[in-house]
This record gives sequence, C-alpha cells and structure tokens, in this order.
Amino acid sequence: MSYSVAVAGASGYAGGELLRLLAQHPEFEIRTVTGHSSAGRPLIESQPQLRSLAHLTLQETTPEVLDGHDIVFFALPHGASGEFTAQLTSVRLAVDCGADHRLTDPADWDAFYGGEYHEAWTYGVPELIVAERAADGAPIWTHQREHLAGATRIAAPGCNASTVALSLAPGIAAGVIEAHDIVSVLAVGPSGAGKAAKTNLLGAELMGTANPYAVGGTHRHIPEIRQALRGAGAAGEPSISFTPVLVPMSRGILATSTARIVPGTSAAQVRAAWEDAYAAETFVQVLPEGQFPRTADTLGANTCLIGLAVDEAAGRVVVVAALDNLAKGTAGAAIQSANIALGIPEATGLSINGVAP
Amino acid sequence: MSYSVAVAGASGYAGGELLRLLAQHPEFEIRTVTGHSSAGRPLIESQPQLRSLAHLTLQETTPEVLDGHDIVFFALPHGASGEFTAQLTSVRLAVDCGADHRLTDPADWDAFYGGEYHEAWTYGVPELIVAERAADGAPIWTHQREHLAGATRIAAPGCNASTVALSLAPGIAAGVIEAHDIVSVLAVGPSGAGKAAKTNLLGAELMGTANPYAVGGTHRHIPEIRQALRGAGAAGEPSISFTPVLVPMSRGILATSTARIVPGTSAAQVRAAWEDAYAAETFVQVLPEGQFPRTADTLGANTCLIGLAVDEAAGRVVVVAALDNLAKGTAGAAIQSANIALGIPEATGLSINGVAP
Amino acid sequence: MSYSVAVAGASGYAGGELLRLLAQHPEFEIRTVTGHSSAGRPLIESQPQLRSLAHLTLQETTPEVLDGHDIVFFALPHGASGEFTAQLTSVRLAVDCGADHRLTDPADWDAFYGGEYHEAWTYGVPELIVAERAADGAPIWTHQREHLAGATRIAAPGCNASTVALSLAPGIAAGVIEAHDIVSVLAVGPSGAGKAAKTNLLGAELMGTANPYAVGGTHRHIPEIRQALRGAGAAGEPSISFTPVLVPMSRGILATSTARIVPGTSAAQVRAAWEDAYAAETFVQVLPEGQFPRTADTLGANTCLIGLAVDEAAGRVVVVAALDNLAKGTAGAAIQSANIALGIPEATGLSINGVAP
Amino acid sequence: MSYSVAVAGASGYAGGELLRLLAQHPEFEIRTVTGHSSAGRPLIESQPQLRSLAHLTLQETTPEVLDGHDIVFFALPHGASGEFTAQLTSVRLAVDCGADHRLTDPADWDAFYGGEYHEAWTYGVPELIVAERAADGAPIWTHQREHLAGATRIAAPGCNASTVALSLAPGIAAGVIEAHDIVSVLAVGPSGAGKAAKTNLLGAELMGTANPYAVGGTHRHIPEIRQALRGAGAAGEPSISFTPVLVPMSRGILATSTARIVPGTSAAQVRAAWEDAYAAETFVQVLPEGQFPRTADTLGANTCLIGLAVDEAAGRVVVVAALDNLAKGTAGAAIQSANIALGIPEATGLSINGVAP
Repeated sequence: MSYSVAVAGASGYAGGELLRLLAQHPEFEIRTVTGHSSAGRPLIESQPQLRSLAHLTLQETTPEVLDGHDIVFFALPHGASGEFTAQLTSVRLAVDCGADHRLTDPADWDAFYGGEYHEAWTYGVPELIVAERAADGAPIWTHQREHLAGATRIAAPGCNASTVALSLAPGIAAGVIEAHDIVSVLAVGPSGAGKAAKTNLLGAELMGTANPYAVGGTHRHIPEIRQALRGAGAAGEPSISFTPVLVPMSRGILATSTARIVPGTSAAQVRAAWEDAYAAETFVQVLPEGQFPRTADTLGANTCLIGLAVDEAAGRVVVVAALDNLAKGTAGAAIQSANIALGIPEATGLSINGVAP
Repeated sequence: MSYSVAVAGASGYAGGELLRLLAQHPEFEIRTVTGHSSAGRPLIESQPQLRSLAHLTLQETTPEVLDGHDIVFFALPHGASGEFTAQLTSVRLAVDCGADHRLTDPADWDAFYGGEYHEAWTYGVPELIVAERAADGAPIWTHQREHLAGATRIAAPGCNASTVALSLAPGIAAGVIEAHDIVSVLAVGPSGAGKAAKTNLLGAELMGTANPYAVGGTHRHIPEIRQALRGAGAAGEPSISFTPVLVPMSRGILATSTARIVPGTSAAQVRAAWEDAYAAETFVQVLPEGQFPRTADTLGANTCLIGLAVDEAAGRVVVVAALDNLAKGTAGAAIQSANIALGIPEATGLSINGVAP
Repeated sequence: MSYSVAVAGASGYAGGELLRLLAQHPEFEIRTVTGHSSAGRPLIESQPQLRSLAHLTLQETTPEVLDGHDIVFFALPHGASGEFTAQLTSVRLAVDCGADHRLTDPADWDAFYGGEYHEAWTYGVPELIVAERAADGAPIWTHQREHLAGATRIAAPGCNASTVALSLAPGIAAGVIEAHDIVSVLAVGPSGAGKAAKTNLLGAELMGTANPYAVGGTHRHIPEIRQALRGAGAAGEPSISFTPVLVPMSRGILATSTARIVPGTSAAQVRAAWEDAYAAETFVQVLPEGQFPRTADTLGANTCLIGLAVDEAAGRVVVVAALDNLAKGTAGAAIQSANIALGIPEATGLSINGVAP
Repeated sequence: MSYSVAVAGASGYAGGELLRLLAQHPEFEIRTVTGHSSAGRPLIESQPQLRSLAHLTLQETTPEVLDGHDIVFFALPHGASGEFTAQLTSVRLAVDCGADHRLTDPADWDAFYGGEYHEAWTYGVPELIVAERAADGAPIWTHQREHLAGATRIAAPGCNASTVALSLAPGIAAGVIEAHDIVSVLAVGPSGAGKAAKTNLLGAELMGTANPYAVGGTHRHIPEIRQALRGAGAAGEPSISFTPVLVPMSRGILATSTARIVPGTSAAQVRAAWEDAYAAETFVQVLPEGQFPRTADTLGANTCLIGLAVDEAAGRVVVVAALDNLAKGTAGAAIQSANIALGIPEATGLSINGVAP
C-alpha cells in the first residue's frame, strides 16, 4: 500500500525534516509540496540537503492543492493551518505540526495564543502516559498511542512541550512526584524558532552565547505541558516554571526538569516509575543510572533519551531529556503518529540511531 | 605604587585570563609566571593571545619562585594550592582561584572534594550580601566587600557558585524568597573545566550539542552556594537542585535560578529586593523588567548581569544571570577583590563592556 | 544474502559512523565490534547515539577476533591496520579506513608517514575518474568503480584527499585545467582528527575560532591527492598548495580548490568537464551554475556536492566541494566501495539526503 | 585634549565595536550616537554589552546631528555615508567604515558596487606598505601611516581586503612573490555581514556548517585588494582568486593566501620580507617559523597575526593571517588611523591582547 502525501509549509525547517523522513518511508509517496513566498520555485532551493527530492516544485498552499491526498502534513506558523483544515473534505489523515489543534481548553488558547480557537485533535505523542477512569472510578493507565489508532486528525506536539511531558508523566502517573512546583529549564537550538528572518535569530547573535527568552511563565508550550500532565493523572493542577535558553546548536533540546518527590518514596521507586512506563518503548528510552543523554545522541533520530537522578538533599528528581526538536520533537512524532493512525508498523521509516559526533 | 605580581598556573585558562586583566591594570606589574608541564617554555606558546606578555617565560611552580612577590594569584587545580600557600611567608596578598580555601566547613570539603582540608580564606565576591548580627541579635546587612578590605588571603569564588549566589542572595536577605527548594540550571562553556586533555571535552564532543554533567546534586559548587546563601541570612538550611549543562560556547555561564516566593510578597517587593541590593554596584547590574541577559553581553567583562521575572502561576521568581566564567567568574573577581584588599579603587583595570557579538 | 561484518576500532568516530551506516544496510550483519582501551565495555558507552546496537560489546582488536567474518572494516589509527591485515586469511573483503594501504609509492609513505610500508589496496572512491591507456596509447577514461568490482582489499580514502581529488579530477581528465599549481584550502571539522584526547582539540580551543594546521605542504593527504590526480591523467606532475583550517563544526569538509584554466578553454567547456564526469553519479553531484554547497547539506549523507565557478579575471576555476568527512569522506565511501566489490547495488544502505539545518 | 565624537550607525556591529573601543580611549568623548530604525531608543537596547554607555540615546542619522563634532565615525551600509559626508562642513576628522570612499578608480566602483561614485579618502591601514617613486624613478617604500598623518578624511578598510593586503604586500614590495595568480580563501564570521535580518544569516543556517559565498571573483573587496597590492609596488596588474567561507564563529577572519615565489628566491629571503616589513609594528606581527595564528588569538584586539610557510614543492608561499573583523578589521583600524591623523600616540585606546579561549 502506498499513501499519497502532501506537505504544506515544505520550505521551512519542520517541513524539511518531514520530507527527509517521508523520503525514507516505504509506504508514503510525497506527491505535493507547498510553500508561501517560495511557491513556484524548486524545492531544492529551500531544502538543498534533500537531493532525492530535487524533482519537486513548491506549489501554493491552498485547500485545492492539498485536498485529495491520502495524508496532508501541515508545517505552518500557528494560526495558519486552522483555516485550511476544515476545507479538506477528502483527506483521510491530516497531521498538524503547528499549534492550532493542540489545546483542549479555549481559555488556554486565548491566554497564550489568541485569535480564533480551533478544536483539539488527537495529540501526537504515542508514548505519553494517559490516565482514564474505569466505571468504578479507578484509574487505568494507557499510552496515547491507544488514542491514535484510527485517528484521522492528529496534532503533532510542541517540541519543548513533548520533551517535558515525556520527562515527567511517568512520575506523575505513578504518584511518585508532585505535579505542583515543577521547574524545567531547556537548552534549545534555534531551528525550533523557524526560518523567518529575525535579527535576534541571526548567527552573530546566537553563536558563542546562551540567550534566554520567554522567561517568567510566558512560553506558549506551558499550557500544553500542563494539559499533558493533567492527562497523566496529576493530583491537583500542575504548575511549572519553564525557561528556554537558546544555545549555539542548530538542532536539539536538552530539558532539565525537576519535581518534588512525594514524601516516603524511595529512590528505587522513583526510578521504577520511568523504567516501567517506557520499558516497551522503542523511541523513548531511559538510560541506566548515572548516565545522561546529550542532544547529539538524538540528532536526526526519532528518539527521546532520558536520564534520571534522585537528589535526596534537594528532595527532587532531576530528569534530563534529550531529543531532536525537528525529528522526534516534530516531524518524527508526526510520522510515528501517522503510522499508528493508519495501522502501519509504528517504527516504519524512523531511525533510533543519531548522527554523532 | 606598583605591586609585584606572580601568577601560578599561568598556562591554563584561568591563568591566561588573570594575565590578560593584570596586563591592563596600572598598579600591578606581572613579574613571574609559573606552569607545570610547560615550565621553561615561553608563556606565549600557552597563551598566544597575550601578545603584550611575549617576553615572559614560565617557571616552575614552587614556593621559592612565588615567595617574595607582593601578590600571588593561584590558578591551579583544586588541591594544589593548599600545599603551597602555607609556605609563602613574605607575600602580602595571596588570591587563590582554586577551591582549596573556599569552604568554611570541613565536612563540606570531605563530602565534595576529599583530601586534606585547608582553612577558608576571605571569600572574593565583593557584591555578595552578608548578614551579621548586632548585639541585640538584629540582622545587619553588608556586602562581602566590607570583609575584603585589608584582607591578605582571598579565595576567589567558583564561577558557577558565585553566579548562583549573586542571583539569589538579595531575595534571601530581603526575606522575599525561600532558601529551601531552589532550582538552578546552568548553561556553561567548557573553559570552566580547564585545559587538561579529556575525551569528553573534545571539540567534536561538545559542538552542536548540549551535554549535562554532575546531575543529581553532585557538583562541587553546591556546598559553596549553600554557604553563601546561609551567609546571606537564609532562614533555615538552603537546599538547591543544581544542574550544569555544557553548551557550545567557549566561555560563559547563563544560570537560570528559581526560588519560591514567600507567600504574601508582591511582585514589586520581589524586584525591589534585587534592585536595592545592587543599586550601587558597578559590576552586578539588574536589568529593567522584561529584559534578560545573554552571556555574550558579558564576554571579557567583569560584569554579572541579572534579569528577573516573577512567575505568579508558578509561585516562583526566575532569576537569569549571565557572566563570563573566566572574567567576573574567576579572574575578574580575584582582581576586584585584590583591589579592595589593597585599597586600590575597586574597578581599576576592569571593564564593564563586553565583546559582542 | 547476508554478510557477517566486523568493525575494528568501533569506539572511535570513523568506527561509529561505519556502524551507523551498517546498521541500516539490509545485506550486512554487524557481528563483531572491537576496541582498544574500551575492549570489554558495551559499545553504547562509546557510541551512545547508536541505540540499535546497544546489545554489542567491544572485543579486543586481534586477528583471531576479526578473522572468519565475510567483511572486516578497519577504523584504526594509521600504522595499526597494516600489521593485522596480512593475518586475515579467511576474510572475503577487508576495507581499511586508515592510511596504511592507500599509497602506491613507498617513497610517499616514507616522506609523509614513515614506518613500515604496506602495499596499496584498491582505492575506494568509486566516482574518481581514472585514465588508462589503450593498446595504441590512447587514453581511456573510466571511473574507479570499474576497479572496485570484485576487489577483496579496499583502501577507503583520506577524507580531505578524496574531497580534493573529486573536485579536480574531471577538469584534469578533460584537459581543461592544469594539474600544476593547484591551490586548495579546506574548512574542516575536528571529528576528522579522531577521538584521542589532545589539548589542541579541546572544545574551548576550537569553538569560536578558525585554527589552521599542517600549513606549508606537510599534510599527509597531499601525496594521496597527487596520486589521484596523476591517475586522472594529469599531464605532468601535479603540484598543490594544501591548507586545512579547523572550524567550529563537529563534522564536514568544505574544500575550495582552484586551478588554472588551460588557455583557450571556454567557461562552458570547463563546466562541461565536471557535468559530464558526474552526470550519471548518484553521490557526486554538480550544482547548477551560481549555486554552491554548504557542508550542512551533506551531513550524514553519502554525497559530495560540487559548485563551480570560472573566474576569468583570475584565470582559474574555483571548485567548492562539500562532504561529511565521516560519511562520504570515510565510512560511506567504505560501504559504497564494499557494495561494488560484492556486487550489491551501489547505493544500498546509503542516503543522499542530509540532516539540515 | 579631549575630542568630541559622533558615531553614525551605532546600532550595528561595526558601530558597537567602535563604541567599545572609543569608550576606553582617553582622548575621545562619545557625545552622539545615531541609528536608523532604532533612533529614539536607548543605545543599550541595541548594544546590551556596552554597559558604560547606558546613558546614551540613539538619534537620527542626519548631517545636522553629526556636524559640529571634532570627529565623526561612519558605520553605515555602503552607499549611505557618501551622501552625508559632503555636508559635514565643521567636522575636523571623518572616518568612514563603509566602502564609499575606498576605491580610487571609479570603474572599480561601477563594476563591484554601482551607484554614485565618491572620491577616495586616505586609506586607513597604517601598516600597509606603499611604494612611491623618487624623482629618478626609484621606488621608495613607506607605510600608509605616513599618509595618514594630518588626514581629515579617512576610509577605514574592508575587513577581508585589509587582511589579504597585509598578508601579501610585504612580499610584493620586496619582489619575492608574484602579484599575479594569487589565491586567497577566507574563513569568516557572520558579523562582517552586518545586523540586517536575512534568512541566509540565521543561526540555524550557519551553525555546524561552512557556507561559501561570492565565489568566482565577485566579492566587493577584490578591487580594494588589487588597489592595495598595486600600491605596494606590484610589477604588473595583480590578479587574485578570492573566496570567502562563512564559518560558525561570530567574529574573526582567517585568511589563507598563497602566491608564487619569484624563481631564485630562497625561503629565508621570503620570510625576511615579512619580518622586515613589520619588524617595528605593534599591531601586525609575524609569528616565528612553524607557528600560525588562530582567530581566537585576536578576538577583541587590534592585532593582525601572520604565519608564513614556504611550500617548496608547490612553489608558493602560504600566508595565514588572523584578525578580528570588527576590531582590527574595521573599528580598530578606524581608531588607530584617527590617532595617527590627530597626532595622538598610535596605540592609544587599543589592545594587543585577545580574549581567549
């Protein structure tokens, strides 16, 4: 079986990574790529690294161009996909890498994005632990992949949000850490900010320096993280101090997240929560005690690597998670989720080996 | 007046920065430089950037070579200076950039370093707020500079430790934040790890990637931070979750520190604590609301720049501090402290302008 | 058909890249990995990015361990493989990524390496143009791939050498440029220098700076380049001024090579030489006029991308070639050559899409 | 004596470096700073590293604002200063860091820039060797500094141009190298391209990669180099193949230049040409044989460091020159030239020590 695929926003960073991964996927056939200012130009001008796609030309991003494909991946700035997606009447599966369909609560959308709210789609982080309630009220733990099977509309995650959610959900689901008073600080590469020309993203501004941004609780991924942690069964409303720092690497997120350990929990119980949650996972791996990941270990791969330490003096667990913001953080999550939705083996077209050094 | 100066460990990174700053200091005359494996070689081979010092030759690091100078700066690996310093009978001022004389509690030394304990010297962070007790027990707030006046033995700070201590001491002294449950995550450049050849510090291992280390409460600067925060008048024993992350910049520390705001404190009161503490300072500056520092802004300068946000949803203050680990973090702190000790104007030979971009 | 494979020197950078590519090769089964100081340890400790190979343990690099595999790849420091290779009596195909078997002239070995000379093996740059002589003395142009078919001993190229050889061989073979007075300057990443801990390769020494080395005609890849250009049919002995410059990227080579255009040659004739030589190639591509490659476009890919300009005022062609030193420059070339030798489709297991940005 | 100074274009990279150097100059008083889109805003928003200038506000760049100062430094895009400079009737000294007044030949301006030609001002590279003719036609060698004494209008050099000119002029003046068939390849940081937001200068485009540009003889600094080499007494018209490569460092130029050695010249004679030319210089230094500079050695300093090798097999001298494009390459050259013009000691306010690592 081969599915016809369109990628909207193919000239940007997320679009490029989608295409790189799609090009090595045996079941997907890239039929259409669209852009905005680059429409009408060869794709290879925007994505000179994608030599196997040199034959493609960027078209305009319109419903007419996109409709009719089996699958459409959207890699547009937030606010841009929402207007299109309602018009795709004959698309079997739409996957949005933007923010438009991630938040279940319109109040969160208003507070952090603004503009028209669009309904939430199925969240595209298959390994995320989610809690459901049995008829008798008892919690039943599943992974988000259960909800992705058969989905037709998928919201790929925010790269920072999924890194932090994957870092903390196991401890929350297992009841070994508090969802309140979490602190996350992320070292992130600038490709996550997109390809638009901005002075503060110039090479000369970012090389040789660490630059914080969105300090003090204003980053748009915060409600998405809280939503995921609530979904993992947090007792009480999660709260998080979240600070991203741009560092001189083109790709990658290294998230250091700490949460208070629930009193009376042993270090072994803490570690077991994460090891159990991800024991069967291919793409989310917990490293042995004393080992911590580097972002380089995940470059180009669909992996989220997690190292864990219990700091007894501080009463906190420290979870360090690394992933490639464009791969597992965005495009890889989108394709992995699409595989699940379509019933294709989940790992198809995705690698767990990074390009390092 | 001109003071004769020796620098021990002049072939390393901290030694090089000491020399760069000393070379532009009008009151200090660099007379002697010493090294270990490079003894007997021209300094310029180890420090090719210091063209004005091309006439100097590295000597052996021995008490005989060092004694007799007005001032000796030590930039040796920890454990190395302790054995020398007792033998310097005719040195007016010794400043140790290593760890040997920083900790007041031998138990901290044992727990984090080990080996022979050496008594603590006067701590070389002039702007650090310290609390004393009046006869009636009331606290009296001063800065560490008061203790440095006339000092003859000074312990320059750990670069990470002083960044975090300067970040949080004002809030603790003012009683607006809790000293308990602090979280600090630092983006740091590898020059802080020194010039010894180690595989994990190779360029190929560090470029394009963020690498955590000493995760989970094991970093040696932790007791130094706690000591400084106790000194600032912490109510109760400070606790801190401290995680450094190596990022691809040769120099610089960007420390993101968060602490819980004492209930009932307004955002304005929080900000005022920092602005008041550093209002008269040249080298520690609090940026206006909404502004946060980049490490590039401090490159080569003796500044610690601090940005501050109150995250009401998280109940925490977020303090982002930037400094140059070799300058204000080490060599600049050493020279600034020496200026104070000797009664020279504090800013002599030190710049507040960074080299950027 | 599945071939059993051993990789000697699997803990280093070239070894890691071999394994990354081998792991995605459908015909090769990685059975044995060997190391030196890391023997006995899990491979994943040395190559934490290779999650799919977490089950492998490094063994000692001995003839006994290596013999008996269908294929052995050597990724050892120069001088180390020569002693082993003679003892591999039952290995169908040996591919050496070191220098030991590259040079056909013992005098070149003596002048640039020294120590025992080992006979040259079939050179592993399939796209390289080579000139042969017909019975009547007329030149016959082929590609090196013709010589690789059926080979049992292959010398993978020096990464810098193959970049320059691929850059210039077409013009020499076509007689449109002079082989005399070539100038090549290369921006190179430090992974090409290997994983041994050396002070001059520390991150702090290489970030934010460009560092030349082996200036003035001393680099060991020079005789290999001259040998390749002679093989391409150079009229007269080639001469080259060759200067590598370490720049802050972990991987990559950007070689800028210039050669004098033979008088009377038109710009179109110059360009045609390259376009004709590589018209049928998958992995060596000539970009359209006015376009030049970035190393990022080749990251992780088996491509050498070439941009070409005729500078009429200078009377020189400027050829800018980009490749990934570990991929197409070493491990990719080795596997591509092995594919050819074994009669497997040449592109098996190799990608032409880079990981960018 | 204190001179009043205005800096036009103070919000950009060259403007920032001018201000950093001016701030430490004892004879110059920064009175006025101007910008374009940032006019009306505090300087510190554009130049957050210049803490000592936090009191300054950017004004509009108009003749009225600029006229009346003793000295005006222009750091504007090319084409922008020419229109102003004629209107500055009461400015004692104007120094243009742009290209508008560098070229003596209008045909060069037309070919490489276009638009209105403005007359050339005195060229601001004091150490450049220039040849004059005595009454009897014999050459007389001087340095450009002779021409700068008393100058009232100075054209600071192009950063790449001065690096190459300083690299080669000694050999040309001494007659030991040919001015024909020079090849220069430069590793350059992106700050030289200015602060305007362009997609191709984004951090994500430049980190971890080497990107060539202006390949094939189109770079605008080429006529400036040829002009300087003619001025150095080149026998015949100079020709140069010139290729710049953007590499991941915010500042710095490492120029590798090669030229053919005049037959019959010994290696010692070659080296002597450079050593003699710069023997008395503070800011241009020739390193001992076998040593080559890194750009890091010049960061923030007003130095151009030169390493030299004779490659006898290639028949070429290889000259590797490092400088900080914003310091010695632009702002430092401007201030050094201004010092000379005004009769202030040449090194006033300028350092020869770099900030490394």
